Amino acid sequence: MELHVKPEHSSNTSAYPERARMLISCPDGPGIVAAVSRFLFDHEANIVQSDQYTMDPAGGMFFMRIEFDLPGLDDRLEQLKTEFAEIAGRFSMNWQIFQVSHKKRLAIFVSKEDHCLVELLWQWQAGDLDADIALVVSNHPDMKEYVESFGIPYHHIPVTAETKTEAERRQLEVIGNDIDVIILARYMQIISPAFIEHYRHRIINIHHSFLPAFVGGKPYAQAYARGVKIIGATAHYVTEELDGGPIIEQDVQRVSHRDDVNELKRIGRTIERVVLARAVKWHIEDRILVHQNKTVVFN
Amino acid sequence: MELHVKPEHSSNTSAYPERARMLISCPDGPGIVAAVSRFLFDHEANIVQSDQYTMDPAGGMFFMRIEFDLPGLDDRLEQLKTEFAEIAGRFSMNWQIFQVSHKKRLAIFVSKEDHCLVELLWQWQAGDLDADIALVVSNHPDMKEYVESFGIPYHHIPVTAETKTEAERRQLEVIGNDIDVIILARYMQIISPAFIEHYRHRIINIHHSFLPAFVGGKPYAQAYARGVKIIGATAHYVTEELDGGPIIEQDVQRVSHRDDVNELKRIGRTIERVVLARAVKWHIEDRILVHQNKTVVFN
Amino acid sequence: MELHVKPEHSSNTSAYPERARMLISCPDGPGIVAAVSRFLFDHEANIVQSDQYTMDPAGGMFFMRIEFDLPGLDDRLEQLKTEFAEIAGRFSMNWQIFQVSHKKRLAIFVSKEDHCLVELLWQWQAGDLDADIALVVSNHPDMKEYVESFGIPYHHIPVTAETKTEAERRQLEVIGNDIDVIILARYMQIISPAFIEHYRHRIINIHHSFLPAFVGGKPYAQAYARGVKIIGATAHYVTEELDGGPIIEQDVQRVSHRDDVNELKRIGRTIERVVLARAVKWHIEDRILVHQNKTVVFN
Amino acid sequence: MELHVKPEHSSNTSAYPERARMLISCPDGPGIVAAVSRFLFDHEANIVQSDQYTMDPAGGMFFMRIEFDLPGLDDRLEQLKTEFAEIAGRFSMNWQIFQVSHKKRLAIFVSKEDHCLVELLWQWQAGDLDADIALVVSNHPDMKEYVESFGIPYHHIPVTAETKTEAERRQLEVIGNDIDVIILARYMQIISPAFIEHYRHRIINIHHSFLPAFVGGKPYAQAYARGVKIIGATAHYVTEELDGGPIIEQDVQRVSHRDDVNELKRIGRTIERVVLARAVKWHIEDRILVHQNKTVVFN
Repeated sequence: MELHVKPEHSSNTSAYPERARMLISCPDGPGIVAAVSRFLFDHEANIVQSDQYTMDPAGGMFFMRIEFDLPGLDDRLEQLKTEFAEIAGRFSMNWQIFQVSHKKRLAIFVSKEDHCLVELLWQWQAGDLDADIALVVSNHPDMKEYVESFGIPYHHIPVTAETKTEAERRQLEVIGNDIDVIILARYMQIISPAFIEHYRHRIINIHHSFLPAFVGGKPYAQAYARGVKIIGATAHYVTEELDGGPIIEQDVQRVSHRDDVNELKRIGRTIERVVLARAVKWHIEDRILVHQNKTVVFN
Repeated sequence: MELHVKPEHSSNTSAYPERARMLISCPDGPGIVAAVSRFLFDHEANIVQSDQYTMDPAGGMFFMRIEFDLPGLDDRLEQLKTEFAEIAGRFSMNWQIFQVSHKKRLAIFVSKEDHCLVELLWQWQAGDLDADIALVVSNHPDMKEYVESFGIPYHHIPVTAETKTEAERRQLEVIGNDIDVIILARYMQIISPAFIEHYRHRIINIHHSFLPAFVGGKPYAQAYARGVKIIGATAHYVTEELDGGPIIEQDVQRVSHRDDVNELKRIGRTIERVVLARAVKWHIEDRILVHQNKTVVFN
Repeated sequence: MELHVKPEHSSNTSAYPERARMLISCPDGPGIVAAVSRFLFDHEANIVQSDQYTMDPAGGMFFMRIEFDLPGLDDRLEQLKTEFAEIAGRFSMNWQIFQVSHKKRLAIFVSKEDHCLVELLWQWQAGDLDADIALVVSNHPDMKEYVESFGIPYHHIPVTAETKTEAERRQLEVIGNDIDVIILARYMQIISPAFIEHYRHRIINIHHSFLPAFVGGKPYAQAYARGVKIIGATAHYVTEELDGGPIIEQDVQRVSHRDDVNELKRIGRTIERVVLARAVKWHIEDRILVHQNKTVVFN
Repeated sequence: MELHVKPEHSSNTSAYPERARMLISCPDGPGIVAAVSRFLFDHEANIVQSDQYTMDPAGGMFFMRIEFDLPGLDDRLEQLKTEFAEIAGRFSMNWQIFQVSHKKRLAIFVSKEDHCLVELLWQWQAGDLDADIALVVSNHPDMKEYVESFGIPYHHIPVTAETKTEAERRQLEVIGNDIDVIILARYMQIISPAFIEHYRHRIINIHHSFLPAFVGGKPYAQAYARGVKIIGATAHYVTEELDGGPIIEQDVQRVSHRDDVNELKRIGRTIERVVLARAVKWHIEDRILVHQNKTVVFN
């Protein structure tokens, strides 16, 4: 049932077969930019975008993202990495190089609320989400037919207090070894530390409040009770601390005393959809570096 | 030294000598609007604006704000109130009637940070803040000359842990008996419950965070540490619970990893100025009703 | 193929079988509110929400929206209307009364760009759009299967310069006589004055710019060429003047020099979806009054 | 009369005596970043921030802003420039190097509306505007005492249709030869092409609408007549085309049918203040490059 995959869906990435992105973080010091740009120039790479940020000029951290085109990238990438390791070592860099044409593979986790999943599927189908949605995992069967109508496998894995460990084992099994990032699209189960460790800074959650306000459950009910005039949503990487991981993106909307909890939820759904989709887009475009409990987003 | 009082400063209110505003809250029930509007019609009042809100149609609270013109208001207001008391009693109303031409009298409290005070003075001078600024109270002497250059009395009352009770006694003394509302324009001292009791729902504070996030001290440092992507400010009525009173208005602005604590403070100053000025404007235009710990704002 | 209609889709309106909404506009004058509220009280109606606005107290226009509950509404509505006509005549009112349980029937027009249609279908399916989507009309066949999978009839009526008159005749035919409002969800054909006349202030268009900037074709290319820092979208009622009808709602988002035309389009799609959905929601909740070329929106 | 210059006003720039900023624009090509960063490294400069943008990778324009620290900058800058000219020539660069400790000198033009001037003075006094306000020029005498109370010279130069040429001659005379940028802070006279030519891309105007909507006079009246739901303001460089120059910054605020022209003006004043102040800040921090009729803003 391929019904929903409309013809205009095309791969953006295929347009750039020779493009790569490099993410670097290291202690700041003189000569980093010169060394990296010289290295790329010597390898005939053309820098098409570059962003950098120094947390504190005197002895802080340095962050960099470079997008470059390199003729014959596919054949030369491994050699390039090997040679770059020398520079990386000299400056004590954490670094990664991604090939733009290698699409990231996503696993989406969802419970009963479907709006975030529907948004991601729609953006993916419209060609705005340049990744492969490899599978959907849910503790409920509700969205099975819908997801499968896009040609995407749907794994219904129930979770109870008793079966949690076993359920996570099954989740890891169906995810396999080649998933780049997991999206919790209103997945209402808490992930165990062991699971998080597998996907450190690669699990994105959408929390339905303007964190750190209203941590935990029922944030719209909390927001209504407190009488706030603006509500929001927060996309963040999942860490062991509930709703405490590095914030990727937030957005808000004005509300008034006329909006009851149901109306807050309705308004919030649109904020959640937009915020999560932005965070996912930035992640798959390699725009996010994490340092301690914060993000640097080059967007 | 009248230097700053520019000629264009004019009283908006004088344009409406016969206008009044009525605020009502009561348990909801049939016939309230009919009774009130009939009453006003019978007294030859013309309703120029009316807002109402019912918290929950089935047995909830009813809130209403009516602006009306009444020929000969000055002479007839007392009689009007006396007669309205009968209707008010029938529906168990909390109610107030304000004469628009009777400007509210403000006391502004300030510490060292002057941006919120400067904004209020500028809006007042531009004719956008339709009230009388009766006096400024500060625990520092810094702004004395500046405030007095507007022809406004400035009371420097130092506050220390030891002198707090005495300081509050002197504050109440200089304020006197005819101040309608106290504005804490970045006044960094905690107000005692006894003082708050004197001015229940008539003390407006600006908190430099998006409450309930970052309650308490140094909210911009807290926001920086948490890595939020949006910062905000909150104007609220002061209650015994620190930063926990009814929220009047909030606003926010987007920030990024590039903004350090000083830059957050700088950005925040503009948000604080705008949010506090809006809250004060709504208060002096009788647009705010407080119910339990929340506000109904008819704006 | 009922696949997409998930069980949680429920009728909001059925919860309020006895609720009605009244919209009034008339020259301002004393006694209007008193007369209307007295009338409703005498008929045992309970006002649950009421908004009014006077364009200019001295001799301007008066606008009012009242939501009320009336026991036995279904049986008594015709009688109520007959009796209200007397008051309406006295104050020269334009007025309408709508039964909330009578859902509005929508026809959606679409061309090739599907994001606004998809949003409306999603909101409708989620129970957030309290109306019946009676049919979809398109000058392209592309969305046929998708729309029909929701159980909604899809009429493919091609339009060319030569066949335009005949195409509009067919459109009116398939629409029939009981459609309340037509939504142009990125329908890229100009509607003829004769067609507009049939549905005066009942055709809502989404224009993909912040009107009146960038009237006409290719607004994102225009916005890119001008180098604006914010883009937007506008929902308006269609009139004979292209992109010149009464504005219902607008929203915007910040962009930068990094965003090329395709990126502006991508960002714009989300703004368009949100703005159009809000305008449709307000229309079906009877929140909009049109006066001359402007709207009064009680939201 | 030094009354308003409060002690906390301090020079940010003095904290960075060895910091410089370089702005570059040139046709894109390989090796630019490598050459520039190598050049700076060889001269012992430490890059503290760097932004670049390529309009179109294949044959477009390349823009770059670099902030760097260079020990002994004061003595070495001229030599640095001389040597950089060789690289600049190789890549056909337009380029400039600014010493951060050399504060930019501003001339502010104002007419009767004072809010933008007051905002700039307040931000300058608070230490948030890191520049010298060298003088204020006005076609009205109203603000003389106020401006002079800050220790800033005020030149009242009346302008009429007949005296316009002579008035501009006098304006250029009082400005002298060392003004970096002219701020039109609601200056309501049209500047002649000859004057503009003297200060190409160095005159910043605040237009009180969301350009290109409502070009020309009385934009708030135009906005009211059109019934827009959002109003805005635009800061742009002045060119020969009225309100047509490169846009630097825009911002907006939501309004409703309740806001008449005076209320739109009142709301607009705050938007204008904020937008103009941001544009001025970015200009004096050398964050803006102009290409054709658009800006690249590295903020």
